[in-house]
Amino acid sequence: MNADGIRPDGVRVISVSREGEFGLIARVVARLPQQPEVLLGPGDDAAVVTAADGRVVASTDLLVEGRHFSRDWSSGYDVGRRAAAANLADIVAMGARPTALLVGLGVPGDLPIEWAEALADGLRDEAALVGASIVGGDVTAADVVVVAGTALGDLQGRDPVTRSGARPGDVVVLIGWPGRAAAGLDLLRSGTLDHPLTQAHRRPTIDYASGLSLATAATAMIDVSDGLLADLGHLAKASGVRIELTAADLPIDPALEPAAAALGADAFDWVVAGGDDHCFAATVPPESHLAIPRIGRVVAVPGGEEPGVAVDRPVPKAAGHEHFRS
Amino acid sequence: MNADGIRPDGVRVISVSREGEFGLIARVVARLPQQPEVLLGPGDDAAVVTAADGRVVASTDLLVEGRHFSRDWSSGYDVGRRAAAANLADIVAMGARPTALLVGLGVPGDLPIEWAEALADGLRDEAALVGASIVGGDVTAADVVVVAGTALGDLQGRDPVTRSGARPGDVVVLIGWPGRAAAGLDLLRSGTLDHPLTQAHRRPTIDYASGLSLATAATAMIDVSDGLLADLGHLAKASGVRIELTAADLPIDPALEPAAAALGADAFDWVVAGGDDHCFAATVPPESHLAIPRIGRVVAVPGGEEPGVAVDRPVPKAAGHEHFRS
Repeated sequence: MNADGIRPDGVRVISVSREGEFGLIARVVARLPQQPEVLLGPGDDAAVVTAADGRVVASTDLLVEGRHFSRDWSSGYDVGRRAAAANLADIVAMGARPTALLVGLGVPGDLPIEWAEALADGLRDEAALVGASIVGGDVTAADVVVVAGTALGDLQGRDPVTRSGARPGDVVVLIGWPGRAAAGLDLLRSGTLDHPLTQAHRRPTIDYASGLSLATAATAMIDVSDGLLADLGHLAKASGVRIELTAADLPIDPALEPAAAALGADAFDWVVAGGDDHCFAATVPPESHLAIPRIGRVVAVPGGEEPGVAVDRPVPKAAGHEHFRS
Repeated sequence: MNADGIRPDGVRVISVSREGEFGLIARVVARLPQQPEVLLGPGDDAAVVTAADGRVVASTDLLVEGRHFSRDWSSGYDVGRRAAAANLADIVAMGARPTALLVGLGVPGDLPIEWAEALADGLRDEAALVGASIVGGDVTAADVVVVAGTALGDLQGRDPVTRSGARPGDVVVLIGWPGRAAAGLDLLRSGTLDHPLTQAHRRPTIDYASGLSLATAATAMIDVSDGLLADLGHLAKASGVRIELTAADLPIDPALEPAAAALGADAFDWVVAGGDDHCFAATVPPESHLAIPRIGRVVAVPGGEEPGVAVDRPVPKAAGHEHFRS
């Protein structure tokens, strides 16, 4: 198979099938600088990365074209940024500094090589925000683009911040603007391609530094990727507590209301059920003085009830994204 | 979407779409025991694994249905074994003991939940051969089954064994039986489902213990996944040497000749160009006394030539598998 072509603007597009697996790998690897803690980078059977702490934090996340992104809406660079972000946010949510990213890439033979190179640039640039390197990967043929990322992180001597440490009396805080990516996706689906919110779907903007800082004070923390209610539900269940959210305290991007009105949607649904913004939600002791919005509190589970999340206004029934169900 | 059904034998098949993402994850995680070095296993944003050595070895490998396996030929258990093997072999080829595996899983909504559970069992059982645990993962919907594995390993104080350490005078040795998986795949494609070689495609049998032992003596080592000539070519290039193979010394499974005769194929092609057996090829100093077959030697690159591999009989032109090219 060979799928080169001439674009409408006359530029010849070289496909990955023409370049071949090893040619593609060479082009990608050439774009990836390595930080000093990478003892052995791409090009061998495996990478070797410093784990000075004596422990390593690891998380994996799979993005599939047609499910998580569309090449009609997102550039290779966008998808690279987003794939890296999804993985790096999980590491930061444990209170660890991301050190390395490995990426398994499935690509159709007719994918322009430039798209794959832009993906590598996106991965590199997002990883650079936290000082991490792309240390290894795998390339294979697939019918649609698949980006399988795995991030590694360093706890730097600290305890990991799990989902299970929330205690009654703690305060719930949130970094980020939930619902922006979900609103952006709905706008894209309705045909609005150019809008500040659509960019939030293409490339979430994550405040990693604040996340790491918050982790040092948090009793429990989670990367909000399934939706605020769903993920706080995971945290509440793991901690055996009830979380009470105050709707009026949720940070809501002012662009959501007009977008919801234009689409006949409910902005609050986006905020509580939209995933993929990779906000950081955490619980902190009540005496903590953080410049981070408080959105609720942790209480004991009332007798006869289950751990979970309560909100002081009606919320959508199926809050939080779950794959396979729609 | 909901895709349950009744099998011809009357058994009700529950699909992953009916079970839902979190139900599937719960079923899978319940099947995965955790070794003591797993400080935090599945269920949080990321896993935490001991890296006592102060370094971590990491490699990733992507298997895509229709490219690497067919559900017509391979069970979920087979695919789990093979996916784990492909990742673990890379870690062992660096001289590291595998400690953990993370798995990103893409599954069609109508996939029977039993298939996914069998996959988890296969991953678990292959990882158990080296004492590794499945510490985390991700599940998402996809049109075909995608298994994105990442393995972590511990060097236990040793230097990593790279591809670049081969020196003129070294001897080339090989653990395993190259060509069996390639022969098995050709048999499957021709309609022969039940044959000792087809099993080699479904579940490669890897001698991890011998691989780790060999690594302590090796100057360079590689997991043979692209084909013997291709992978020794990578090693020769990385080391800046020439490798001379002796065809008569290659370990050849006696089942290959009859299978080749039946298919009108060339058994030697399978041996030198077939990947996916995950043999370990290594170079060792000439004074090494190892009970491992010697298949060739390392010499200096003759003036005016490039590093590479030479064999003392004709070999197929396109030796070694490369994705996108066929």
